[in-house]
Amino acid sequence: MISSVFPVLVDGRWRPAGGREMFQALDPATGEMIPGEYPVSPWADIAEALEAGARDAFKMAALGPEPVALFLEDFAARIEKRKEALVAAAHRETGLPAEPRLGSVELPRTLDQLRKAAASCRDCSWSRATIDTKADIRSMYGPLGGPVVVMGPNNFPYAYNAMGGGDFASALAAGNPVIAKSHPGHPATTRILAEEAHEAVLTSGLPRASVQLLYHFAPEDGLRLVSHPRLGATAFTGSRPSGLALKKAADEAGRPIYLEMSSANPVFILPGALDERSTAIAAELFQSCTLAAGQMCTKPGLVIVPDSPAGEAFVETVRKAFEASEPMVLLGPKVLEGLQEAATRLAAKGAERLAGGREPSGPGIRFSPTLFKMSGARFLEDPSSFQVESFGTLSVIVLAKDMAMMREIAARLDGHLTGAIYSHSGKADDREYEAIEPLLRTKVGRLLNDKMPTGVAVSPAMNHGGPYPATGHPGFTAVGFPAAIIRFAALRCYDHVRADRLPPELRDANPTGTMWRLIDGEWTQRSI
Amino acid sequence: MISSVFPVLVDGRWRPAGGREMFQALDPATGEMIPGEYPVSPWADIAEALEAGARDAFKMAALGPEPVALFLEDFAARIEKRKEALVAAAHRETGLPAEPRLGSVELPRTLDQLRKAAASCRDCSWSRATIDTKADIRSMYGPLGGPVVVMGPNNFPYAYNAMGGGDFASALAAGNPVIAKSHPGHPATTRILAEEAHEAVLTSGLPRASVQLLYHFAPEDGLRLVSHPRLGATAFTGSRPSGLALKKAADEAGRPIYLEMSSANPVFILPGALDERSTAIAAELFQSCTLAAGQMCTKPGLVIVPDSPAGEAFVETVRKAFEASEPMVLLGPKVLEGLQEAATRLAAKGAERLAGGREPSGPGIRFSPTLFKMSGARFLEDPSSFQVESFGTLSVIVLAKDMAMMREIAARLDGHLTGAIYSHSGKADDREYEAIEPLLRTKVGRLLNDKMPTGVAVSPAMNHGGPYPATGHPGFTAVGFPAAIIRFAALRCYDHVRADRLPPELRDANPTGTMWRLIDGEWTQRSI
Repeated sequence: MISSVFPVLVDGRWRPAGGREMFQALDPATGEMIPGEYPVSPWADIAEALEAGARDAFKMAALGPEPVALFLEDFAARIEKRKEALVAAAHRETGLPAEPRLGSVELPRTLDQLRKAAASCRDCSWSRATIDTKADIRSMYGPLGGPVVVMGPNNFPYAYNAMGGGDFASALAAGNPVIAKSHPGHPATTRILAEEAHEAVLTSGLPRASVQLLYHFAPEDGLRLVSHPRLGATAFTGSRPSGLALKKAADEAGRPIYLEMSSANPVFILPGALDERSTAIAAELFQSCTLAAGQMCTKPGLVIVPDSPAGEAFVETVRKAFEASEPMVLLGPKVLEGLQEAATRLAAKGAERLAGGREPSGPGIRFSPTLFKMSGARFLEDPSSFQVESFGTLSVIVLAKDMAMMREIAARLDGHLTGAIYSHSGKADDREYEAIEPLLRTKVGRLLNDKMPTGVAVSPAMNHGGPYPATGHPGFTAVGFPAAIIRFAALRCYDHVRADRLPPELRDANPTGTMWRLIDGEWTQRSI
Repeated sequence: MISSVFPVLVDGRWRPAGGREMFQALDPATGEMIPGEYPVSPWADIAEALEAGARDAFKMAALGPEPVALFLEDFAARIEKRKEALVAAAHRETGLPAEPRLGSVELPRTLDQLRKAAASCRDCSWSRATIDTKADIRSMYGPLGGPVVVMGPNNFPYAYNAMGGGDFASALAAGNPVIAKSHPGHPATTRILAEEAHEAVLTSGLPRASVQLLYHFAPEDGLRLVSHPRLGATAFTGSRPSGLALKKAADEAGRPIYLEMSSANPVFILPGALDERSTAIAAELFQSCTLAAGQMCTKPGLVIVPDSPAGEAFVETVRKAFEASEPMVLLGPKVLEGLQEAATRLAAKGAERLAGGREPSGPGIRFSPTLFKMSGARFLEDPSSFQVESFGTLSVIVLAKDMAMMREIAARLDGHLTGAIYSHSGKADDREYEAIEPLLRTKVGRLLNDKMPTGVAVSPAMNHGGPYPATGHPGFTAVGFPAAIIRFAALRCYDHVRADRLPPELRDANPTGTMWRLIDGEWTQRSI
C-alpha cells in the first residue's frame, strides 16, 4: 500500500512520492530489515523539485544572507532537541556506536558546522568582495541561480548527511536552495533531520523549496539530474565508480560538480621514526585503520615502511594488533562485498595476507580487520591498482627495499586526500623527508607530520580535498568555513553599476562592520 | 627541406621539430602567404616537452617565487625592446592596425599584465595563506606539480598569446612551467615572444623547461596532451567546438582545464534609455560591435530593444551606421567562413538582414559589417541557437514586444561573459531593471550599466569569465591579478607539520612583509 511509504519533501510539502517502488534500510548489526518503507522517486518528483528549487533560487537571492543564517542556527537548535531520536536511528541504521561516536562526537560536530556556516553567511566575508575604486569595478561570489543537489555518503549519518551535513550547509550559506538525496543506508536518520529542517525553513522565512528531500532514485535519473540546465551544482561524496559516472554526465553538460570519491591516504614511515618509536606508531596506525571499522575517507590504506629488520618488526606489531581484534560491524552489505573483492584482488596480485579472513561469530554484516603486505617492487609494477581505496578495515603495508624505492613509490602515487610522513623527532630523517615531501605534496590535499590522517578538523585552514581521483578538482575543500562555501558560488563582477543597484556587500559602506573585503589591494573591514 | 622550417623550443633548446609537416601564416589584408615555414609537431615533441616540464615543475617549486617574478619582469622589458618587430609581425599576421591597437594599446597592456603578475608572485598574497594557530593547521595555494599547457586565441596576438599573455603569466606566477602552443594565425609574433622568453629564462635562473613552445600539432595530439597524467592543467581560449572537445578529454582524465569558449554578450536597452539618448547609445553600440572588426570575446552580439517606434528608430540608426561602414579585414579565412555560415543560418531561421552582405572591393579576407533583426517571439522559439557567438562584425537585434517578453528573453539566456543593461539616467527604468537584473545576473560573469562590454580592464575586481558555455566553470576569471593566478594552483594543507618544514608563506614570520594572510579569521600583513 502506497500510503504506508514515507513521503518526500518537495516544494515545501510532505507528499507521497510519484511512484510505487520502495526500499527499506538494514540494521547491519543484526542483518535484519528495519520496519519503515521509503520511496524511490521517479523522474517526475525530481523534475518538480528542480523547478521549485530553480524558482526559489531567485527568491533566496533577493532575501540576502540573514534568513539563511537564521535557518542554519534554528536547524542546529532543533537537531539538538531531537538528539535522542537521531542517535537511536543512526545507530540502528549504520551500526556505528551511539556513544561516544554518534552522540558525543559526530552530532556536536554537525551542529558546529551548521553554526559556523551561519556565522560565515551572516558575516559575508566568504564572498571575497573585491573592489577597485579607481576603475569602478566590483566583484564578489554569489549564488548559482539554481538549486544544489547534495548526495551524501553512508559513513557519516549527520556530519556529511545530504540533509544537514557540510555540503548542505555550504550550499545554503552561498544562497542556494538544496535538494538533498538521502543515502539509502540511513533514511530514518535523514527523515528526522528533514523534518526539523522543514520546520526551520518555515520559521526562518526562507522560501518553501529552499530545502527539499528525496530518498532515492534510479541511477539514470541521477545522471539526468546532475546534468540538468536548471541545476546550480552537485555535491557528491561516495564511491569512485558512482562519482565518475556522475562527473561524466555533469561535465558534458557543463554543470559544476564537486566530488569526494576515494583516497588510500598513504603513510610513509621513515627509518629514524621506526628506530625511535616503532611500537607507538604501530598502535596509532592500528587505531586509525580500525576507527569506525575503517569506514573513514581518511583511513590509512597504504603504509610504506623500510624493508629492514625494524620494518619487519613494525609489520609484526601491526599484524598482532589486527589479528587480535574482533570482526567489526560494517555499514552495510556493499561495504562487505567491496572488502571481500579487494582482499581477493590483492591476494591474486601477489600481496600477502597477514591478518583477517576470520569468520565472524556474531550476526549481521561483519568483517575481520585485514592486513596485507607486499614488496615495493611488486607495488611499482602496477602502482595504480594497489592504491585503490578499500573502504573498511583493510590496509596494505608496502616494504620499500631502500630509500630510492620509497621515493619512487611517492612519485607513482595518484591523487589522495591526505598523505602523512612519520620521521625521527630530531634530524635523523631530514634528508629523506626533504626527498619525499615535494613528491607527496603534489599528490595530496593535506600533508601531515607524525600524525594519522583520520580526524578532519573543521578549521578555516583545513583542506578536505585533493587531486583527482580523490576529488574532481584540486582547488576546493569540502570541510572548513568559509572556504567550503565558495564551491557553490559564481564570481559576479559589477562594472560601472550604479551605487544603489549594487548588492550590499559591494556598496561603499561595509554591510556588517565585520566583513573582510579586498579594497584597492588591501584586505580591510572598513567602509569606503 | 626540413632545415628551413623554424625550430621549436623544447627543454631549453631551439631544435627542429620531429616531423615534416609544416604550415605558413597568411596575411589577411592581402590574402597572401607570409614567407616562413613553421612545424606541426608530432607526439614525440609533445611528449618530450611534457617530461621536461614535469621534471622542471619540481625544480621551480623548490626555487620559490623570486626567479619567476624576475623572469616576468625581464621578459616584459625584453618585449618592450622588440616592439618594432612585434608590431610589424602581428600587424602582418592579423591585419589588426599597428596603431593605436597593437603598438599603443595591446602591447602596453601585455607588459602591464606581466608586471602585475610579477608583483603578485613576489608579494605571495595570491596564494591565500590561511593559518589556524590553535589547531596548528595551515594552508595555501601552490603549484600543480606539472606543466600548464596554454593555447591562445587568434584575436590578441600579445595580450592572450600562449607565449606571454594573461594565462601564460598566471600559470607561471603560480609556480608552474608553461608549454605554449602558438595560434597558427600568428606564429612569427609568437616566435619573437618566445625568443625573448627563452633569454629571460636563462637570465632569471628558472629551470630550462620553464617555458617551452610548440607551434602546432594535430587535434588528436591536443586531446592526448590535455588528458595526460603528467600535465598540471590546460588553459584554452578559442572556439566553442574546439574548447568542448578539449574539455571532454581533460574532464574524462580528471585534468583541470580552463576554457574561454564563446559569448554573445547580451545588451538590454530599456525604454527610458531610448527616450533619453537613443542616438548616443546607437553610436556606442556600433563602435563596440565593430572594434577590431568585431573580433572581441566581449563584442555585443545580441541586443534586446523594445518593439516600439523608439525601438525601430534605434534599429534604423544602428542599421545606417553598419550600412555606411566599409568591409573590414578579418583575422583569417576561418573567421570569414564562420560569419558567412552564421549569416546563412540566421537568415534561414527567420532573422532579417538589415545591413551587410556587400562584396568587399579590397583584397584579402574582408567582411562587410552585418546586422540582423528578429522578433522576440521568434527568438524565444529557439533561444539557444540565436545566442551562439558570431565571431566578427555580426550582431543581432531582438525586438521584444513588451517588457514581459524582455524578461523572458533574459530568463532564457545561456551563460555569457558579459551582460549589459542601458537604462534611463533617472529612475524611469528602475522597475524593469529590477526585474531583469536578477535573471541576467546569474547568466553572466560581468554585469554592466550603461556601458558596452568591450574593453576588459586588468583589475583585481575584473571577472573575465562566466557560466557555461562561456567558460567551463563559473568561479574563475582569466583576467585580473591576483585572482587569475588561482586557476593554476592546488589547495595545499599542512596539518601538524613542523615549523621548519613549512613553506615560507606559512611560517610564523610574514615572508615578504606585505603578504596578506588569513590568520585566525583576520586578514593581516603581520607576523605571528
